[in-house]
Amino acid sequence: MSRTFTLAQIAKWIDGVVRGDAGTRIDGVAGIHEAGPGQITWLSHERYAEDLRVSRAGAVVVPSGYGGTPMPAVLVADPELAMIEVLGRFAPPVPRPEVGVHPSAWVADGVELGRDVRVGPLAVIGSGAVIGDRTVLHAGVFVGEETRLGEDCEIWPGVVIRERCRLGDRVIIHPNTTIGADGFGYVFSAGRHLKIPQIGTVEIESDVEIGAGCAVDRGKFGATRIGAGTKIDNQVQVGHNVRIGPGCIVVAQCGIAGSARLGTGVVLGGKVGVRDHVVLHDGVRAAACACISKDVPAGTTVIGVPAVEHRQFLRDRTAVRRVPGLVEQLEALARRVDQLEAAADD
Amino acid sequence: MSRTFTLAQIAKWIDGVVRGDAGTRIDGVAGIHEAGPGQITWLSHERYAEDLRVSRAGAVVVPSGYGGTPMPAVLVADPELAMIEVLGRFAPPVPRPEVGVHPSAWVADGVELGRDVRVGPLAVIGSGAVIGDRTVLHAGVFVGEETRLGEDCEIWPGVVIRERCRLGDRVIIHPNTTIGADGFGYVFSAGRHLKIPQIGTVEIESDVEIGAGCAVDRGKFGATRIGAGTKIDNQVQVGHNVRIGPGCIVVAQCGIAGSARLGTGVVLGGKVGVRDHVVLHDGVRAAACACISKDVPAGTTVIGVPAVEHRQFLRDRTAVRRVPGLVEQLEALARRVDQLEAAADD
Amino acid sequence: MSRTFTLAQIAKWIDGVVRGDAGTRIDGVAGIHEAGPGQITWLSHERYAEDLRVSRAGAVVVPSGYGGTPMPAVLVADPELAMIEVLGRFAPPVPRPEVGVHPSAWVADGVELGRDVRVGPLAVIGSGAVIGDRTVLHAGVFVGEETRLGEDCEIWPGVVIRERCRLGDRVIIHPNTTIGADGFGYVFSAGRHLKIPQIGTVEIESDVEIGAGCAVDRGKFGATRIGAGTKIDNQVQVGHNVRIGPGCIVVAQCGIAGSARLGTGVVLGGKVGVRDHVVLHDGVRAAACACISKDVPAGTTVIGVPAVEHRQFLRDRTAVRRVPGLVEQLEALARRVDQLEAAADD
Repeated sequence: MSRTFTLAQIAKWIDGVVRGDAGTRIDGVAGIHEAGPGQITWLSHERYAEDLRVSRAGAVVVPSGYGGTPMPAVLVADPELAMIEVLGRFAPPVPRPEVGVHPSAWVADGVELGRDVRVGPLAVIGSGAVIGDRTVLHAGVFVGEETRLGEDCEIWPGVVIRERCRLGDRVIIHPNTTIGADGFGYVFSAGRHLKIPQIGTVEIESDVEIGAGCAVDRGKFGATRIGAGTKIDNQVQVGHNVRIGPGCIVVAQCGIAGSARLGTGVVLGGKVGVRDHVVLHDGVRAAACACISKDVPAGTTVIGVPAVEHRQFLRDRTAVRRVPGLVEQLEALARRVDQLEAAADD
Repeated sequence: MSRTFTLAQIAKWIDGVVRGDAGTRIDGVAGIHEAGPGQITWLSHERYAEDLRVSRAGAVVVPSGYGGTPMPAVLVADPELAMIEVLGRFAPPVPRPEVGVHPSAWVADGVELGRDVRVGPLAVIGSGAVIGDRTVLHAGVFVGEETRLGEDCEIWPGVVIRERCRLGDRVIIHPNTTIGADGFGYVFSAGRHLKIPQIGTVEIESDVEIGAGCAVDRGKFGATRIGAGTKIDNQVQVGHNVRIGPGCIVVAQCGIAGSARLGTGVVLGGKVGVRDHVVLHDGVRAAACACISKDVPAGTTVIGVPAVEHRQFLRDRTAVRRVPGLVEQLEALARRVDQLEAAADD
Repeated sequence: MSRTFTLAQIAKWIDGVVRGDAGTRIDGVAGIHEAGPGQITWLSHERYAEDLRVSRAGAVVVPSGYGGTPMPAVLVADPELAMIEVLGRFAPPVPRPEVGVHPSAWVADGVELGRDVRVGPLAVIGSGAVIGDRTVLHAGVFVGEETRLGEDCEIWPGVVIRERCRLGDRVIIHPNTTIGADGFGYVFSAGRHLKIPQIGTVEIESDVEIGAGCAVDRGKFGATRIGAGTKIDNQVQVGHNVRIGPGCIVVAQCGIAGSARLGTGVVLGGKVGVRDHVVLHDGVRAAACACISKDVPAGTTVIGVPAVEHRQFLRDRTAVRRVPGLVEQLEALARRVDQLEAAADD
């Protein structure tokens, strides 16, 4: 963390233009409120312009054409993209097991390990598994029989991937997540819940990231599928035979019930529930805590418990808030009718 | 997965009658939409009759008396029960550790292991624990001191069962689940939350199945109890001293707070919350995402946040949707009163 | 569990006064409904006075000045505080690994272990880590490089604490919890979600307790922070750069999104969601299942999806329930207007 760079060097990484002292020395990255004199920050949104004025940051990355700043600036086309590069440069190295198999790991016969694979202490790999080049299995990871991982995957401690699952390349799975446990299915007969065998698998395409403490169940038959480039946050539940399309974002604590389908680029806020067999078409967005029990057409935003279209939600809210006024208007009108009736009686 | 059977053989397994070519060769099972020519599917519900017409399945299991099908059929009394049998026959063998104790496992002195127990790599068993005949502890399972497991249990990798808990026979626990952690209890005194010792245990009866990533806390005193044949999905939280009756279904991500009680055959949809000390009587059903804060009488269905009886929920919904119409009616009526008043003034 | 004490001995532990037979022998603690003749219970709240009358407990702890009880009693200033002491005395010893490092554990070079540290079987400690005096790492715990734990911590099996995190003294973390996984952050560019490096850490202050199956993400930069004495239940998600103040209570299955801030003494009921960047000021209370999307002023209680102030919630509920009555009143009034119009037409 003790590396220091000049603003000129940083500008070069991100194809930016320095405004102010290019020799300013920077040794870290921080948010606009937290950054001190040795740190660089960035303006991710116009609405933080006011915050920038009082920031103590030593430098700031701003969009090309942005006006004066109280500290030296680097002007770039896209400050957020630039900050990915800058954060990567300042990132301390991620500790990984050595290349090879740690002496305490248990690798069954007939496992195929690619080049430069790293298998950490106390990891367990079942027979017939295939681990692609440069993939990292951290300490205590379990990979079941005949499961295949692609290249450049990173599987963190405590992850359990059961038998016969398939992961593409560059898949990241965070600690204590379970891939390929039995789906939840029973037939009620003669007073008992009889278990339906869950004989399918899980298929996770390339560039998927799955958070900590998640569970992705294996299919009843066929596969539970997660599409390329989809990103899943912590503690998400993916039921058996769910199919999630490519490029989706699933925020923490969502639950997607069996056989539900998400199209391309679907975005679920935190804690969203999706009922079994429901289809969310391409580009659907669900607000946090939505509980979705029906198919949702492409591009629609839903919200609420149960979830409805965003406009319907607002209408319902407005309706509820109008009731007290209605009560008063009705009473006022009733008094006027009282008077009319009294006058008519005269 | 490469075993092939004739339809005649399959019909024999499930006590069914073949209609069409009994020699049709089948090598797998799949859903009505996914099945190809070598696969058998089943009609689980009349509403899928239309789907069956376009299915590419090589054969189908239908209820006795069901009409013509585009492919050979096996007629049985209960297609869903039959498919449990068929899925089981086609299921690839589940990989399990060898009988005995893996050399890398740590079994304390004074552990009692039944016949044909399987203890996988890197499992840990504390002193005084008892493991029943044929029970399987997969890799990396932790069983605490004096915990007793019955016969034919299957405990998947990464499960932690702390000290002094009891499991019946045929209990299945999926990966990364925790049994017997301390309950959540404090007394606020002199500005601090003081921890209440959680000196109880967990008792799980026979034929219970618990999903991946669950947490069942030990009792403050006495036991947290899960009744025989109850099935719990992934990521469910069961607080201290909860008592769940037999034959319940608890879908993923439910949270049942301390000392709550579920009767027999209660069914909780996904993400349901149950407040502490609340009683759900026999046969209660809760829709997904319900947040239950009061006792619920037997046989009642509840829904919503906070949960209300299903009929009340529908009434409330209808009420909200009537408001815009009320506004209009009230305005129309006000105009009529305006006219009456104007006429009266004349 | 087989130790027996007289009521006189118990009274001495808790600075209480015996009323009735001080020689009554007690061998355990139980709730008011479950306690039998050999067990002591307590009256935690006046509303259980009726239950006490039918309790079979051998003795009861009641507040000083409390009236007659059907069994011998110990009178104390604060029965709940007293029961913490009594439960602690009756608690069976918690099984812990021996002092020292278990031969199957993997401790990297350059780890600093304090006095009387206990490292259980199959635990893994990365280089540069520091473990304070008397801290216990149970079986299978993972502590990453350069992570520092204070004194008297207890880390249960299956916990993963990644690199460069810091824990204070007396921190308890329950099984299968993950500390310091990457936060969830991407920039969408050219049709793909690009991962933002998460180069920060986690800082957990002293006397914090974290339940089973939780996930506390590391900061994007800087630290995710949990304040002294805060207690977190099972399956809680804490996003990157969240700051939780001291003395908070976070019940099971809450989700706190990135950069949210909780002040001092905030209490979140079960399953509460807090949106990213939202600030909950000191003393805020949120009812179970609340979904909080806006800042909440100090001392306020919120409820609902989306969360509103408790009073607003009640007003909305009342409003909805008034609608059917409004419909009737409006119809009645319309009939009166009909008659007035008919009369005017005459």
